[in-house]
Amino acid sequence: MDNFSFYNPTRIEFGKDKEQLIGQILAEQGVKKVLLTYGSERIKRDGLFATVSKSLDKHGISFVESGGIVSNPVLSKVREAIATAREHKVDAILSVGGGSVLDSSKAIAAGTLHDGDVWDLFLRKAPIDAALPVFAILTLAATGSEMNNGAVVTNEATKEKFAIGSVHTFPKVSIVNPALMQTVSRDYLVYSAADIIAHSIEGYFTARVQPTIQSRLVESIIKTVIESTEALLADPHDYDARAEFAWASTLALNGITHAGTAGFGYPNHMIEHSLSALFNVPHGAGLSVVIPAWAKWYHAHASNPRPAQFERFAQQVFGLKTAEEGIAALEKWFDKIGTPTRLSQLGITEAQLPTTIDNVLGNAQWFGLAGTYTRDAVTDILKQAL
Amino acid sequence: MDNFSFYNPTRIEFGKDKEQLIGQILAEQGVKKVLLTYGSERIKRDGLFATVSKSLDKHGISFVESGGIVSNPVLSKVREAIATAREHKVDAILSVGGGSVLDSSKAIAAGTLHDGDVWDLFLRKAPIDAALPVFAILTLAATGSEMNNGAVVTNEATKEKFAIGSVHTFPKVSIVNPALMQTVSRDYLVYSAADIIAHSIEGYFTARVQPTIQSRLVESIIKTVIESTEALLADPHDYDARAEFAWASTLALNGITHAGTAGFGYPNHMIEHSLSALFNVPHGAGLSVVIPAWAKWYHAHASNPRPAQFERFAQQVFGLKTAEEGIAALEKWFDKIGTPTRLSQLGITEAQLPTTIDNVLGNAQWFGLAGTYTRDAVTDILKQAL
Repeated sequence: MDNFSFYNPTRIEFGKDKEQLIGQILAEQGVKKVLLTYGSERIKRDGLFATVSKSLDKHGISFVESGGIVSNPVLSKVREAIATAREHKVDAILSVGGGSVLDSSKAIAAGTLHDGDVWDLFLRKAPIDAALPVFAILTLAATGSEMNNGAVVTNEATKEKFAIGSVHTFPKVSIVNPALMQTVSRDYLVYSAADIIAHSIEGYFTARVQPTIQSRLVESIIKTVIESTEALLADPHDYDARAEFAWASTLALNGITHAGTAGFGYPNHMIEHSLSALFNVPHGAGLSVVIPAWAKWYHAHASNPRPAQFERFAQQVFGLKTAEEGIAALEKWFDKIGTPTRLSQLGITEAQLPTTIDNVLGNAQWFGLAGTYTRDAVTDILKQAL
Repeated sequence: MDNFSFYNPTRIEFGKDKEQLIGQILAEQGVKKVLLTYGSERIKRDGLFATVSKSLDKHGISFVESGGIVSNPVLSKVREAIATAREHKVDAILSVGGGSVLDSSKAIAAGTLHDGDVWDLFLRKAPIDAALPVFAILTLAATGSEMNNGAVVTNEATKEKFAIGSVHTFPKVSIVNPALMQTVSRDYLVYSAADIIAHSIEGYFTARVQPTIQSRLVESIIKTVIESTEALLADPHDYDARAEFAWASTLALNGITHAGTAGFGYPNHMIEHSLSALFNVPHGAGLSVVIPAWAKWYHAHASNPRPAQFERFAQQVFGLKTAEEGIAALEKWFDKIGTPTRLSQLGITEAQLPTTIDNVLGNAQWFGLAGTYTRDAVTDILKQAL
């Protein structure tokens, strides 16, 4: 096991009706005025906005709005919200939405207190020295952003999808009410399943050092995602399945499964970020296309430090025997639940591969994976996914 | 899944040589003077004390000592250390030892800032409003105290073994270096294995609500404990096994496995606390005696809300089929590693049962289990364990 530091101060308030506590939670933390960030106007139609504003009102907390955050959130919106946050001198950000809203909120929180352009933080031109406190009400379980300090934003001008993370960008409190996720579309449910599985397997397969207990935790999460996704496809109102799915999503990327592992990368995310940056495909849909192609390539590749892990995966997750069977079973399961497994399903053609490959190679340096993911390697993987 | 709050702000510094960071960590937190708590003089013989004092020295942190804390730590020692902490106006407690030293340190930390006797906190006569910050260097993995806010102390005068816990008593930083645990005796290793398994199964078996994902996490921990204990019995210097064991121990009681569960109790701990309070047996040794007897009784008892969980345990942990086979396999495994499974092995005779039962019934109200654990029930369980 490798040496590690684990620190995660985010408080999770999980369960039915927890969003009603938001005013009280903010008041306890001394917050007086928040920037309320959200995506579509859906939260105004479905009553969540009313619940939140009533709770804020009750505790004397005022708010300004910054809505319209899109999935694969964009830098221009983050910059606009930072201007609003500064103008109104808010003392916290309240994110009401999924991972895109929350990632944007973390960037807004850090950007508001940064003396300069927020994109400098993504380019590591400046450190994150402080951030406004971020609070979240989660409406989609997928990214794990509710219990980690990471935030991914796309610069539309440069077509770069980059990440920040700092001890200052952990959400203070994240409210996760699975009941709020019952209206998530069937498509976004299965994309989210692919996203959680992607978070689970990146370290599991690529870490140079991978303790057995951590493999077991990851397999527990993946089995839960498979089981609860199927239950939700059968009955979207199955609260317990929704809750197991949501908690699995949180655990997949809150640091617990990465403790003691070493030398792992995010190759599937690296490749997918190019698909969503260039073609604006849903992140999870891009991942379910990349993962099987990547796995087939990586399993046999010289850079794989632990090829036997693929057999372990086949056995523990699917009750199968060989690496190939395990990878095929995962691809088949993606097909079964209806998340894409081919670039063609995303509308991406062979003619678009060169641009895509260039973009991936641009990402590779930021992901620290340039050595392994050469032009030939990325070409092999993406051709496999056509 | 039940509603839950999860909050655990303890930072874990895990791995080789991490104890050398203690001075730096304390300095970063603004600490100038600590009460250094420990157990036997072993830490002075094996060099750990020298390492720690050198690191403190280097960062200009002074310390006063409070050694001699025994396993099953006692109230008189906590009171004495509180007097020392007050006299020397320390601004933090540094625990160097196992769970007993750390539990005592949390009680000292809260007691020092409590205006009155520390035992009042255990009796709930006063709330814990504040505590000095606690830092830990762990030398034994068993209790999970390094990443939770609980502390158990025995009042020798009244023969009561009670617990406190508060948001103020989480350790700030816990250093867990598995290499420091290589000198733990064979006996204490196997007692510790029983303790971790006890932490894992209390909720797993008794919770009224138990999400499947949480069962999977618990099974991951138990399988790791079984595997790593056997590896360590074969080779006490197997660092990776020591590390897997230590991390499993931390995860077993840091709150993660209890999220979303509801209505669970600590019946095995309730019964064992009487054994260690009355007969001063090692806590883990008491637990390995109680668990099989309790499981046989509880599996068939009307108060068991989910009898099928025992079959799940048999299947997932031991690859067996029936509840009875699973319980027998666990008892057999305790026998195999050499932790006791009979009261007679602890030197406790049938003649001592009445006193023991009285003490357990005294605990039952504090554990919130008085309704189920009647005199008849406790008698049945303890007779089974003779």
